[in-house]
Amino acid sequence: MLPYKSLIALQKRTAVPVYQQISNRLVDLIRGGVIKPGASLPSSRQMATLLRVHRKTVMAAYEELYVQDWVETIPRKGIMVSKRLPEISQKICKEMPGKKGYSHQPRIGYRNIVPESQRILNAGDHRLIINDGFPDLRIAPLDSILKEYRYLLRQPAMLRRMQYGDPAGSLNLRESLSQFLLDTRGIDCTPENIMMTHGAQMAISLAARLILRPGSTVVVGEPNYFMANKIFEECGARLIKIRVDENGMDVDALERICERKKPDLLYVIPHHHHPTTVTLSCDRRMNLATLIRKYKIPVIEDDYDYDFHYDSSPILPLASADHGGHVISVGSLSKCLAPSVRVGYMVAPSNFVRQASELRKLTDVRSDNLLEESLAIIFKNGDFQRHLKKSVKLYRQRRDFMCSLLNDELGNKITFTIPSGGMALWVKFNKKYPLSGISARASARGLYISDGLFYDSPNIHYNAIRMGFASLNEKEMRMAVDILKSEM
Amino acid sequence: MLPYKSLIALQKRTAVPVYQQISNRLVDLIRGGVIKPGASLPSSRQMATLLRVHRKTVMAAYEELYVQDWVETIPRKGIMVSKRLPEISQKICKEMPGKKGYSHQPRIGYRNIVPESQRILNAGDHRLIINDGFPDLRIAPLDSILKEYRYLLRQPAMLRRMQYGDPAGSLNLRESLSQFLLDTRGIDCTPENIMMTHGAQMAISLAARLILRPGSTVVVGEPNYFMANKIFEECGARLIKIRVDENGMDVDALERICERKKPDLLYVIPHHHHPTTVTLSCDRRMNLATLIRKYKIPVIEDDYDYDFHYDSSPILPLASADHGGHVISVGSLSKCLAPSVRVGYMVAPSNFVRQASELRKLTDVRSDNLLEESLAIIFKNGDFQRHLKKSVKLYRQRRDFMCSLLNDELGNKITFTIPSGGMALWVKFNKKYPLSGISARASARGLYISDGLFYDSPNIHYNAIRMGFASLNEKEMRMAVDILKSEM
Repeated sequence: MLPYKSLIALQKRTAVPVYQQISNRLVDLIRGGVIKPGASLPSSRQMATLLRVHRKTVMAAYEELYVQDWVETIPRKGIMVSKRLPEISQKICKEMPGKKGYSHQPRIGYRNIVPESQRILNAGDHRLIINDGFPDLRIAPLDSILKEYRYLLRQPAMLRRMQYGDPAGSLNLRESLSQFLLDTRGIDCTPENIMMTHGAQMAISLAARLILRPGSTVVVGEPNYFMANKIFEECGARLIKIRVDENGMDVDALERICERKKPDLLYVIPHHHHPTTVTLSCDRRMNLATLIRKYKIPVIEDDYDYDFHYDSSPILPLASADHGGHVISVGSLSKCLAPSVRVGYMVAPSNFVRQASELRKLTDVRSDNLLEESLAIIFKNGDFQRHLKKSVKLYRQRRDFMCSLLNDELGNKITFTIPSGGMALWVKFNKKYPLSGISARASARGLYISDGLFYDSPNIHYNAIRMGFASLNEKEMRMAVDILKSEM
Repeated sequence: MLPYKSLIALQKRTAVPVYQQISNRLVDLIRGGVIKPGASLPSSRQMATLLRVHRKTVMAAYEELYVQDWVETIPRKGIMVSKRLPEISQKICKEMPGKKGYSHQPRIGYRNIVPESQRILNAGDHRLIINDGFPDLRIAPLDSILKEYRYLLRQPAMLRRMQYGDPAGSLNLRESLSQFLLDTRGIDCTPENIMMTHGAQMAISLAARLILRPGSTVVVGEPNYFMANKIFEECGARLIKIRVDENGMDVDALERICERKKPDLLYVIPHHHHPTTVTLSCDRRMNLATLIRKYKIPVIEDDYDYDFHYDSSPILPLASADHGGHVISVGSLSKCLAPSVRVGYMVAPSNFVRQASELRKLTDVRSDNLLEESLAIIFKNGDFQRHLKKSVKLYRQRRDFMCSLLNDELGNKITFTIPSGGMALWVKFNKKYPLSGISARASARGLYISDGLFYDSPNIHYNAIRMGFASLNEKEMRMAVDILKSEM
């Protein structure tokens, strides 16, 4: 018998359980050829005595080896090392040289979409994070969702059907959502007009890829949600930028553009514009609706934050008016739940929805049906609406707290307008206080705050950031502002 | 006081709870203008007497109205209909005409990616489904995953970090996966070489979008996984098709193509080729590895089914050999778990992974971190490996059962080769039995079976389908084959 006691030297002070130490070591010995294929291992009783461990520990180690196919159990003969090892060395084509494929730099030709040098602070490494407008995960109704998820898992017939669902997403959820959209924002649509997506970003991306071709033109705000700009540029489109002021996008400028040449797409964020949080005024909105009908401009209306209004009733979205099928409305349920619950939607004419679903299948075969069905249930039983109402109340308080805190502590160094809704403030820092320095110094003290550079255009340096208030409680806001204050 | 008793006529025989009937009816009355904004509602005690229901029922109905913002509670005055109704009618820009936006056909210009006429049988409507190779959801370890998911939800600090994870996916999962890939198929890579995706399809799609431009050429098998072909065509690439025989793709034909002009991409499925289930032979594989190094051809190696081998040890993938960074390996965890658990991965040189992550962010901001972390745990504790081993044993039995059943019952009408792995057979039907008719007749009897038309090329009609055996138990297989037999 092999000297197992010395071959398998057990470590006391390690997190690896003893049975795993034994099985790992045995695997090494088999791999290294010390224990040969076909060899018998000592019985669990013998081995336990040799190693001075409980017999159950050895049995767990052997079970592990069995599961991994390193050993076989031969009736009346005990445990034997497999003749066909899981290392699958038999059929390896011997002529193939070493396994260094991935240590090399790639030699394949591909587009670089970000410079190799680009380094971004990793927000997750910080104790405290000012994000650009996320909900608070701590109040997210994840338990309700999970409860329904588990309930659905117990329904085999439903599960089976779900695997072959509509590529546009759960019909139950689309039905509940169409009612919700009518009740909350006057969008009158059927489930056939709705496509569920893996986040609102996917809805923007699919719509853009259907509408744009290389050389197409897209009218966007300046500044604009930078990820939308990236999507359009990735499609090969040219951006035409229109100034965003305190009343939203300058619609007169859009009219002058249309008079010269109709753009292929307009991207607009009418409520709590990203990044500036301004809302498109009522008269501009009417002019915009008229322009859309007159010039038949395809529009992506990004209404990611619509459900969060604090002061008064919101203005209805463009999608609620007669737009002749030109407006594709995009929204997010992640904002109402949690950023990691990736559920967004697109509302569009039904044949556009069908095309978008086909395009989606190419990158993402199906949505997470179980999650969508769970959400349909919490829409139907009202949990979703109750959670939304609770969040709106809490986030309104947090907005008010954050605004007075910033005014009191940093009032002379920053400017911002109190937004009527959403989850973030657009805070412009005095030029004397460059954000890149503040961001680096805050990071060293455990606070993540972006340097805001991705909002900049080649000609415009905003020195501004979105400061999300929804995900921080009052104590956390105070800590964050304290750090900012001392680093400015 | 209004005649509430007749206005709110309660229904006994309905699934809608009484409190909801009351609240729904009150909303209708408020909407219809019968109950005006600012009006007081009867106290819950009064209303309970009027409607002859328990007071708690009325309180639940009022709570519902309060949550939906239809009513306000005024101290010492009771319940009052909100002056600002949630219907948000105040700010609606009056000049906007009706809300018929989505009843129109769209007038926007967009690409049609599927013909409007295309009608496909909805598999989900059938009692019995022969899919093209899915695992059996009934044995999926969804409970284990969910258990870890719930555990993670109780860890607020971890949750917070997770929101800002690496765009390539959970580091824990990528670490476990890199070990698994080394152990099972000799792929020697680090977590930096791995990107987690929302299904293997997303990995193929991202790689293709980085490598291909309009006019690029892609070498594929004939036949080929039709969704891969669609991805390449969607990128504007031209397909060069190479015959697939019983030893896999004809590698000599690839060499002749390379001698004329190097293709921009090669897409290859070396194990259990989709759809034909053949495995690329060892000598062809060696020749292919040589060609890849000689011509520096970028390769997508789709290894979606690698983990399911039944007869003998599998041949190692191309990605395990020295390929100079040319091979992008794509795999799926959905195949080991359940189709609705959308987790796949790409293994590639690290800077390719970084670019692919950036491209992914444009359509899909982040992966489902909670799911990925849950999977990392079941990799670490061995649940995943145990489940895989169990599945392989079960599916091997099912393959054998299905093969003898088909031989016994339909032997003279079909041909197929027993596959060495995977979850489906490639069954060619005798030309006398066209699949389109069989599919339609089977559907009428509750059995979904595809007509196989999507495998066809303009010049080739295969009259063949993939028959998935993994998701059906023996009774179900028998029922399905009985129906097929009687409809042929």
